[in-house]
Amino acid sequence: MHAMTALSSMKALVYHGPGKKAWEAHAKPVVIDPTDAIVRITKTTICGTDLHILKGDLASCKPGRILGHEGVGVIDSVGPAVTAFKAGDAVLISCVSACGKCEYCRRGMFSHCTTGGWILGNTIDGTQAEFVRTPHADTSLYPIPEGADEEALVMLSDILPTGFECGVLNGKVQPGATVAIVGSGPVGLAALLTAQFYSPGEIIMIDLDENRLEVAGRFGATKTINSSDGKAVEVLMQLTDNRGVDTAIEAVGVPATFELCQQIVAPGGVIANVGVHGVKVDLHLETLWDRNISITTRLVDTVSTPMLLKVFKARKIDPKLLITHRFKLADILDAYETFGNAAKTKALKVILEA
Amino acid sequence: MHAMTALSSMKALVYHGPGKKAWEAHAKPVVIDPTDAIVRITKTTICGTDLHILKGDLASCKPGRILGHEGVGVIDSVGPAVTAFKAGDAVLISCVSACGKCEYCRRGMFSHCTTGGWILGNTIDGTQAEFVRTPHADTSLYPIPEGADEEALVMLSDILPTGFECGVLNGKVQPGATVAIVGSGPVGLAALLTAQFYSPGEIIMIDLDENRLEVAGRFGATKTINSSDGKAVEVLMQLTDNRGVDTAIEAVGVPATFELCQQIVAPGGVIANVGVHGVKVDLHLETLWDRNISITTRLVDTVSTPMLLKVFKARKIDPKLLITHRFKLADILDAYETFGNAAKTKALKVILEA
Amino acid sequence: MHAMTALSSMKALVYHGPGKKAWEAHAKPVVIDPTDAIVRITKTTICGTDLHILKGDLASCKPGRILGHEGVGVIDSVGPAVTAFKAGDAVLISCVSACGKCEYCRRGMFSHCTTGGWILGNTIDGTQAEFVRTPHADTSLYPIPEGADEEALVMLSDILPTGFECGVLNGKVQPGATVAIVGSGPVGLAALLTAQFYSPGEIIMIDLDENRLEVAGRFGATKTINSSDGKAVEVLMQLTDNRGVDTAIEAVGVPATFELCQQIVAPGGVIANVGVHGVKVDLHLETLWDRNISITTRLVDTVSTPMLLKVFKARKIDPKLLITHRFKLADILDAYETFGNAAKTKALKVILEA
Amino acid sequence: MHAMTALSSMKALVYHGPGKKAWEAHAKPVVIDPTDAIVRITKTTICGTDLHILKGDLASCKPGRILGHEGVGVIDSVGPAVTAFKAGDAVLISCVSACGKCEYCRRGMFSHCTTGGWILGNTIDGTQAEFVRTPHADTSLYPIPEGADEEALVMLSDILPTGFECGVLNGKVQPGATVAIVGSGPVGLAALLTAQFYSPGEIIMIDLDENRLEVAGRFGATKTINSSDGKAVEVLMQLTDNRGVDTAIEAVGVPATFELCQQIVAPGGVIANVGVHGVKVDLHLETLWDRNISITTRLVDTVSTPMLLKVFKARKIDPKLLITHRFKLADILDAYETFGNAAKTKALKVILEA
Repeated sequence: MHAMTALSSMKALVYHGPGKKAWEAHAKPVVIDPTDAIVRITKTTICGTDLHILKGDLASCKPGRILGHEGVGVIDSVGPAVTAFKAGDAVLISCVSACGKCEYCRRGMFSHCTTGGWILGNTIDGTQAEFVRTPHADTSLYPIPEGADEEALVMLSDILPTGFECGVLNGKVQPGATVAIVGSGPVGLAALLTAQFYSPGEIIMIDLDENRLEVAGRFGATKTINSSDGKAVEVLMQLTDNRGVDTAIEAVGVPATFELCQQIVAPGGVIANVGVHGVKVDLHLETLWDRNISITTRLVDTVSTPMLLKVFKARKIDPKLLITHRFKLADILDAYETFGNAAKTKALKVILEA
Repeated sequence: MHAMTALSSMKALVYHGPGKKAWEAHAKPVVIDPTDAIVRITKTTICGTDLHILKGDLASCKPGRILGHEGVGVIDSVGPAVTAFKAGDAVLISCVSACGKCEYCRRGMFSHCTTGGWILGNTIDGTQAEFVRTPHADTSLYPIPEGADEEALVMLSDILPTGFECGVLNGKVQPGATVAIVGSGPVGLAALLTAQFYSPGEIIMIDLDENRLEVAGRFGATKTINSSDGKAVEVLMQLTDNRGVDTAIEAVGVPATFELCQQIVAPGGVIANVGVHGVKVDLHLETLWDRNISITTRLVDTVSTPMLLKVFKARKIDPKLLITHRFKLADILDAYETFGNAAKTKALKVILEA
Repeated sequence: MHAMTALSSMKALVYHGPGKKAWEAHAKPVVIDPTDAIVRITKTTICGTDLHILKGDLASCKPGRILGHEGVGVIDSVGPAVTAFKAGDAVLISCVSACGKCEYCRRGMFSHCTTGGWILGNTIDGTQAEFVRTPHADTSLYPIPEGADEEALVMLSDILPTGFECGVLNGKVQPGATVAIVGSGPVGLAALLTAQFYSPGEIIMIDLDENRLEVAGRFGATKTINSSDGKAVEVLMQLTDNRGVDTAIEAVGVPATFELCQQIVAPGGVIANVGVHGVKVDLHLETLWDRNISITTRLVDTVSTPMLLKVFKARKIDPKLLITHRFKLADILDAYETFGNAAKTKALKVILEA
Repeated sequence: MHAMTALSSMKALVYHGPGKKAWEAHAKPVVIDPTDAIVRITKTTICGTDLHILKGDLASCKPGRILGHEGVGVIDSVGPAVTAFKAGDAVLISCVSACGKCEYCRRGMFSHCTTGGWILGNTIDGTQAEFVRTPHADTSLYPIPEGADEEALVMLSDILPTGFECGVLNGKVQPGATVAIVGSGPVGLAALLTAQFYSPGEIIMIDLDENRLEVAGRFGATKTINSSDGKAVEVLMQLTDNRGVDTAIEAVGVPATFELCQQIVAPGGVIANVGVHGVKVDLHLETLWDRNISITTRLVDTVSTPMLLKVFKARKIDPKLLITHRFKLADILDAYETFGNAAKTKALKVILEA
């Protein structure tokens, strides 16, 4: 009996309302639906979205919820309808759960799966725990290639597919093209790393933080612009012979950066929005109506995960560049402290090891 | 000498500043660049944009300008570098002049041709005259197929390619899809006619004017919504099982109609802007950032003219449906009166015959 | 006991080796995998492929197999992992079974599903029976829209998606384009019906059988060519001003018709192969290497079924045009006789009603 | 008078029928059409196609013709309709002449331009001369970026766009994908260099020549297979876990290599033909009809030249890797000797400097 009790309990990072969280004991998850898997977390991380939840910005995430939607682990058990995985398999957990059956999943829009989407660490318990229940396991987990670096793979749960799908694919980055990425935080840097799959001619990184721009330079940005003097548009136009950019990737999520994108996009170009916006923005149709531009929005679908795994396997990308700090999972409160003070700690992504 | 003078003079509709226009004598145009053609106009029409110019809304169009950017005619003379046409050829005049050489033309963005674009009746003299000089003739005129109905072809100068390229192509209309067109004026109706090339399942037309909605029903709209009661969103959502539309075509150009499009577009859908906007609009990124939508803008490129000519030749479209009134070219002031009071006259497009 | 026996038996059309088939008693299927459904067939049909099997042309189909891969029915029972359907639901059975999870399914290539593909009536028992077991039910069955004509829907199991995906989509049929369809049998006619979703300018139907060409004329072909005099290429070139066709759809499956397609495809065009070929063909790269053409092959994926259902619901297509004969399911041997002598009986598709 | 005569004569490499060529005096070209430019050649090269002509394989090229379709130079004079260039401009000469006006040019199929295409050194005099007349100058020449390496740019006349357009673009090379290139000669290597714009996971180079495979390894091939033992298919299948390749680029032009491509292409893959074929090949539709593959052919259009110039400017490619030998233009007969004995001399591309 005691052993049983011990087995069915675990530790987890639980959200207790705005500003409150605790690393505490919690019931270990069990299979609910036949397509569920229970995964023992070996490595996880913290996302900027988790900080938003802790600020109380996300009404869908209720107190009592275990946070986290990224990570790798080992299958502990599977429901009777899971056919692609079995206990003991090492797996990558996608931040988006996809049934693979509904109208949206069939169109590759896993983000809008009618029984999934981004639910982990949001409307159901997440990955910042010793165990997690992952719904739709067959279509939401990925086998970890033998010998793969698991730390690197944690970057494939969310940050890399987000930068790639919302920024690079939506932005239609092409060989030789001119790209600007507004925001050199983790997701902007993920866009920077994955934009290079398509050999653009210029990738101009724009941010207020000199350290992050320096990082961008090391990650492959061909030019950087510190926008703190309010002259980013002017400088960018000079750099591009007054043409503007073919692709402007918005990776911040505030009106000012979206405004900037509208000022630098060239006729025929794309503004690919990646940032999470809390308020409306001005759209200058009075100047853009005849400029033949596109503006795209997207919640990551993680449909590119198989492609990203191949590119990773072929060593065309080094996801570990994004990792700046490492903690034990039990020290997750320290990790939040470090990640939450990125300007000071220069944190990008932190790894939590169970 | 007198004969010469007679030959070098013609009649034209000249803009004389806000609210002022005259049908008056004007020097007949001559070849300036070797790629020019002089076309004797046989039929032309009036565009909503001409009314905007007359209101003084378009700074690029200066007093003294002959208006008009649509029409068919017969080649009077050509410059030495014109190889595709000769005097006597019947031609369709595209509203956009394209050099075919510059970076934009090579990408199919004729609207942004560095020495062309929409210049006729804007920055150079236009087609509401007995003769017009058409720059870049080889790549801006189209031979009229033998026996073709010239009235119908006037609709291919601007209104049909605008509805098709900016609305239907940008809007990615697909077989079986659900389309809403906001604005049942000439350009909205042009989108309605050309959307049917792709067999969408539903085309829902939204307007304030019951007469125009009745026209839309005859032109192929499967449903119509009169938005004057402020309940268009509600009604549309009911009609679409709360899904919204795959494509929302904005064909008015004011903030309210762009707002409506944002409220009815389904996840994964497109808002294709066709309307000419004079002021900025609100973009609700706080609700749209995770909806996987696209917003497109476009000044017509007329790259689809060869396709439209083929579809027309195959009788898959009847452009003459758009024509409601006919006048002699010399009676163009009456035509403006009729076209400018469309709510009363029920005018869509008027034909002016020389 | 007797009742039980009665319940677990049914009648089915069983293949007994080349030239041999029987309508006989057979064990009623039961759920094997948790994702299976058992469907009571209400309507089914016969495919040209079934005739191939009966000739012994298909090594994968072994004696003892119940034939048939098309049909509609009512769910009798479902396995524990089926979530989209329940007993009593009316469903359309896709000829292709798709797991929705494997690499190929994720790419929309259901035809190459690693645990599915075309298996019904081939490597597992099929639909020419009172009941059928359908694997991967959630992703291989489609709910029948209320009030829909079930006879028409039988055409969506195979013949319409085959003509549409392999012929029309692969052939990139465009508004105004010139299309030739070589072979006016059921699948060629399905391509003809679905090509019209895209408003091509010309659809030229080529066949040896005058009756089938007459049918093609009624179904929307703009021109027909009887190729029995060996002059089809000459005639087609005259019809197209010596340009050839943008899309040539091969819907027969023998070297002569593939040869014909190579002779009529225009520079920049596509040859979309739909026919099932038993022997290799000559590819004239010595003349085609510099013609910028594409040749495509495809086993139907049925990924277009949701789109086809929408187009059908919108009455943009009348699938029943393909149905020429109707039989009771118990009279399936007569139906085979009629369908197998199509030249004489003028049969296209036959409906078998349970 | 003497001076005039001197000015109007030049030296050129003239084809005198199979096996015969001479470096001899020839009249200097003059502007014929108003869109012509006369270019003084500064650097040119020899193409494998030139060797084909000298063997008498190309009926369109008649004795008396100056060979050569690649090179860079300086504008000597232009016709009255040339607007983009003037005497003294440094230019890259495209191997394909494009009017920019005809139906094919408008579709980006410059190779099939009704008054151009590949005519230089084929049906009109070419670039292996001190001067060349280039038709349709505005749309067939490209300004040389200031400070650019002209030797490198000679590779952009033909070999790089050929490998890129016919192999890489037609082959739909994607990040992470598996590519095989059959033939490690200059054009296969050009495909290898440009395929890397898209970060494929594997590029497997197949050839009979160990030296060329060694070169391929240095140019970025991830694996090489020497096919001289007849086991290339077997080896490739092992390397790809029996999946085959997503893209097979045929860069030889004989039946055996096209056969190989059919055996290694995976379901859903593309065979992109680049090779110039002299005889028909077998197409195994009996095994490929249901494999969902595409086969593409293409004569280079050089529509990608602006993109290639940008990629070159951004230093994402080093075209000079292809250059193995350098000669004075006057020593072109020696250059032919070296280039024609590539197996022995290990020549890839040779530069001829005027």
